[in-house]
Amino acid sequence: MKPLILITNDDSFVSKGLRVLDEVAQEFGDVVVMAPECNSSGMSHSITTNRPLRVRTIKESEGLNVYACDGTPVDCVKMATEHFCPRRVDLVLSGINHGSNASINVMYSGTMGAVIEATNAGYDAVGFSLLSHQMDADFSAAVPYIRDIIGRVLEEGLPEHVSLNVNIPSLPASELKGVKVCREARAQWVDSFVKRLDPNGMPYYWMSGRFICNDMEADTDERALADGYISVVPIHPDYTNYQAIGEITQMMKKR
Amino acid sequence: MKPLILITNDDSFVSKGLRVLDEVAQEFGDVVVMAPECNSSGMSHSITTNRPLRVRTIKESEGLNVYACDGTPVDCVKMATEHFCPRRVDLVLSGINHGSNASINVMYSGTMGAVIEATNAGYDAVGFSLLSHQMDADFSAAVPYIRDIIGRVLEEGLPEHVSLNVNIPSLPASELKGVKVCREARAQWVDSFVKRLDPNGMPYYWMSGRFICNDMEADTDERALADGYISVVPIHPDYTNYQAIGEITQMMKKR
Repeated sequence: MKPLILITNDDSFVSKGLRVLDEVAQEFGDVVVMAPECNSSGMSHSITTNRPLRVRTIKESEGLNVYACDGTPVDCVKMATEHFCPRRVDLVLSGINHGSNASINVMYSGTMGAVIEATNAGYDAVGFSLLSHQMDADFSAAVPYIRDIIGRVLEEGLPEHVSLNVNIPSLPASELKGVKVCREARAQWVDSFVKRLDPNGMPYYWMSGRFICNDMEADTDERALADGYISVVPIHPDYTNYQAIGEITQMMKKR
Repeated sequence: MKPLILITNDDSFVSKGLRVLDEVAQEFGDVVVMAPECNSSGMSHSITTNRPLRVRTIKESEGLNVYACDGTPVDCVKMATEHFCPRRVDLVLSGINHGSNASINVMYSGTMGAVIEATNAGYDAVGFSLLSHQMDADFSAAVPYIRDIIGRVLEEGLPEHVSLNVNIPSLPASELKGVKVCREARAQWVDSFVKRLDPNGMPYYWMSGRFICNDMEADTDERALADGYISVVPIHPDYTNYQAIGEITQMMKKR
């Protein structure tokens, strides 16, 4: 039987990046798309608990079923694997995101929230992002790399509790230098809110912000991307800081 | 000058757990509360980018300012530190959450999203959760431990890029056995959605689920909590799976 590939994203089921990814995925197997109805960027690992969810069938055809869910990307993964996949999923893909999920952006990203959810549920999962926010971004140079990574992951499988955060520079094919496996760079978003006054003189705040990364060491994703490489960061659904366990144990000792 | 302590949560500014925490925090310094207007459980690390935010002043008095923000817990941290704190914050506290944020619940938790955000922004931060979902839960046995942890963190500071996920069993003081520093247990939520039919016969789905943890080894938070200990897990805002970098590098090599 063909592999079954589940695809989601956070830009919604109508995004160009999703369409590009489902076309590549169909070369490898049957595809189920379960993606948010609306833009869900910045939804991180959030779930919807205070209202019920609906699922809308967009298309059901040989090899490609597409559904839209009015929940978060993580909701989409849970919903699809439990209620809308005809058999066990072999691979979960998320994206292709319009915009970077490198460095700490992985924390805020709905695209990557879905990937981490899938990994924790025991599925191999990969998130893809292109470093362009344009709605009609050009994914053509990225496609051969995406195809290659999907092929390798289907063939070899990922280690347990490991998923991949793949970010791709928005460059012509001739300027892409290859793939680098990296760690996530440390960074911050600063100046998060712009304050404005409404017509009644009352303040409101728009999220904005500048991305500040001073961690451009050779092993970081931000360095790789700046140098024209596709960055692949192995991630996991475990927030424990193992290195700190000794020090915190000392700190908590009885005085 | 007194320490400045910022408090947030995900249960909203009216929760009992928040009130208990702000009372303890006032023993140590000046307190600013910036908490969500509404219940934001399950909001994880999400941010609000598609609409502007409002902040409502609930109370401004000597030593305690309370604000409600119609965004997520992470929005609250960004908003408070940038626009509502009179000086640099010395410590960020989140909670006391009504319900466990141990094991993988940290991933979904708005309470812990706020803690991780604060840590990434360079603040010492601690999240507290009591293992009871009751609105009028009894926090009295937890308070001495919370006071002790706040005191230690203010006195010694946390290592860079480390925050604490503190979970407290809902037990009488006589049955609490002390504090254990742990790693996060592996677990899953399964059977996530209950399917129902609306009066028109159309399906809708309520998030539900059962928590399944088969990782009860001696060093896990779930083991510590089951044994009557308060669990303290050092966490960090870095999703990189460092152990997997070698294996994934091999996997991505040119064939």
